[in-house]
Amino acid sequence: MFNFKIIKRDKKTKARLGLLKTPHGVIYTPNLAIVGTKGAIRGISFEKAKKFGAEIFMINTFHFFHNERYKIVEKFGGLHKFLNIDYPLMTDSGGFQVFSLGFGMEHGVGKIANIFPSENKENLRNGSKNLVKIYDEGVKFISPYDGKKLFLTPELSIKIQKILGADIIFSFDECTSALSGYDYTKLALKRTHSWAVRCLKAFGNNKKQIMFGIVQGGEYEDLRKESAKFINSLPFFGFGIGGSLGKSKKDIIKVLNWTLPYLDENKPRHLLGIGEVDDILNSVELGIDLFDCVIPTRWARHGTVFTFKGRLNLKSSRYLKDRKPIDVNCHCEVCKKYTRAYICHLFREKEIYAVILMVEHNIFWILNLFKEIRKAIKMNKFLEFKRKIMNKINK
Amino acid sequence: MFNFKIIKRDKKTKARLGLLKTPHGVIYTPNLAIVGTKGAIRGISFEKAKKFGAEIFMINTFHFFHNERYKIVEKFGGLHKFLNIDYPLMTDSGGFQVFSLGFGMEHGVGKIANIFPSENKENLRNGSKNLVKIYDEGVKFISPYDGKKLFLTPELSIKIQKILGADIIFSFDECTSALSGYDYTKLALKRTHSWAVRCLKAFGNNKKQIMFGIVQGGEYEDLRKESAKFINSLPFFGFGIGGSLGKSKKDIIKVLNWTLPYLDENKPRHLLGIGEVDDILNSVELGIDLFDCVIPTRWARHGTVFTFKGRLNLKSSRYLKDRKPIDVNCHCEVCKKYTRAYICHLFREKEIYAVILMVEHNIFWILNLFKEIRKAIKMNKFLEFKRKIMNKINK
Repeated sequence: MFNFKIIKRDKKTKARLGLLKTPHGVIYTPNLAIVGTKGAIRGISFEKAKKFGAEIFMINTFHFFHNERYKIVEKFGGLHKFLNIDYPLMTDSGGFQVFSLGFGMEHGVGKIANIFPSENKENLRNGSKNLVKIYDEGVKFISPYDGKKLFLTPELSIKIQKILGADIIFSFDECTSALSGYDYTKLALKRTHSWAVRCLKAFGNNKKQIMFGIVQGGEYEDLRKESAKFINSLPFFGFGIGGSLGKSKKDIIKVLNWTLPYLDENKPRHLLGIGEVDDILNSVELGIDLFDCVIPTRWARHGTVFTFKGRLNLKSSRYLKDRKPIDVNCHCEVCKKYTRAYICHLFREKEIYAVILMVEHNIFWILNLFKEIRKAIKMNKFLEFKRKIMNKINK
Repeated sequence: MFNFKIIKRDKKTKARLGLLKTPHGVIYTPNLAIVGTKGAIRGISFEKAKKFGAEIFMINTFHFFHNERYKIVEKFGGLHKFLNIDYPLMTDSGGFQVFSLGFGMEHGVGKIANIFPSENKENLRNGSKNLVKIYDEGVKFISPYDGKKLFLTPELSIKIQKILGADIIFSFDECTSALSGYDYTKLALKRTHSWAVRCLKAFGNNKKQIMFGIVQGGEYEDLRKESAKFINSLPFFGFGIGGSLGKSKKDIIKVLNWTLPYLDENKPRHLLGIGEVDDILNSVELGIDLFDCVIPTRWARHGTVFTFKGRLNLKSSRYLKDRKPIDVNCHCEVCKKYTRAYICHLFREKEIYAVILMVEHNIFWILNLFKEIRKAIKMNKFLEFKRKIMNKINK
């Protein structure tokens, strides 16, 4: 039912073209999982994203765990039925929230702003609030929604992910903060590794899903290598590369260079939560196959759109008289039909439809980038393609 | 370019089937103008609404006035070009905001909650704040958005509405509050009538648009009759019936019974801002041709949907396990595809996509009701149809 095959390797880089088969359809890699956090994309339908070329979607386990909503999904027979879609799905494990509600919040870093927009601002104003307590057994959460006490273990994460029934699931890990330092990251890594073993045990002889093991180790070379070797030694179908990838974009490249050589190159590699254009291109060059990222929708909510000349913020009043489409080189319906002026007007007037239009454009645009990436690899022209895009967006 | 014709009169009631021709297309009446306040429907595209059967859209002049956005629209050549749609449009005059930001706010009544959701709650908490001052010359506003001082006159309203270029425009009026009493309503009516004359003068020999004059007079029989007679005596293409329609639903019928007999029955009659199912049916029965209302989108934002068994609020957790569609008798894509459980889940999780789905359903549903109304009139079965629907929704 599941199969991953590398169908082409770029001659000048480590970029590769792959084909991942799942019971709900195939995914050509490199590819981006469009995020539907709580069971919906923020602005457009799964069908529309599919029409734009989306081949897999990421749903977040934590958001079906904290409210016990997974028990409702169970009655419906899993996410595919609950959402009424027949596309490949993946779920994360909840490990990201160990970070985002924990040290991420305490240190004021990471992606928490997008997950709990209003709460987060409040938290940052009030200073550091750490809503998690991590034990070897599992993680205690205080729900950021209703203050309820929650306890998530590797076993429970896998149990819930089995119920949700996505095609690809992830092992439960402790995602660390860039500010936690070496000693703590090492300790957390040990825990992540023991959890990986427990996740595999809980996963059992599951033929309906495949599981990716997550490599952690922060920005420390020895820990990343150790983690890659250890996770590679376990019978995971593929790999997630998670956690703090450092303090700057360059660190991502460093971390991937430490990690990827130790991972079975015939297995798929997913770089968790990364989605800016330059980071995607750099990571594909090093052999990353899959991504998931909320950037297309999150940016849209803040008025920011992708263009081949770099990102644009349509909130600015300078666009009120601009008759051009968002991106003259984009073939999406939004760019065919609407001016920057109209979208800017709607966004400044806080009209929800502005966000819908920008989400539509951003998702179309980024999926199109992946199509171009795959085409470039096919033609052994990935490096030229990357340079062309990098030059344009950095102008 | 413009023409209104009654093509069928119901035999048992005053309901009528009409055909309103505009340069951007025809509108079969009775019909509902879907509201796109600031140039967009809150959740779906104009195209989608058109596909569902929408034949005309209402845009609000005040929202292009207070921010001088009409000057941008002017550079684009009008709303049709700015929004890039080729459908019949109407604009209101700003007269509603004379009420909603004025006595409506001071008295804590009316539709202000929908227009400025956050500000309104604040205002209601802080007690009465009246942001308008009404003179015979025109109306001083303090902008609820940025505190800017604004002055809107009948002449300026018409000037802006000419620039916006909708097919149908409305005369500038003073919409009164149900709590203003007889003497004030009488005074305001005198002003509204003098403004109607000034609007016609400002409108001039305009061949590209038609203008509806607005009947006011609150819930007072003599004032409504006086107003209907006066407005009817002026060369308006059609009529708007505005203002306070009383304190209960029954008062709407009373007001229409006082007003409609004095209006030329060969001209179209638009009941401003009304859109609940029973009110629509009662008003059509008395000879109303056109409506505009934010209910389909406003309700959706609060989780409320139309069904043939009355309205439903999908916010309630009781729907979390409900496998039925919103309305088993509805043929919209949302009802074909999604369960109440899924939409309830998304709404409770504050996912914007829940609102989008409910807006889509509500607009489809209410436009379908109008199709059924027109069919019933055609077959001389309006009364039976009305009773059937009333029985169902009141169960």
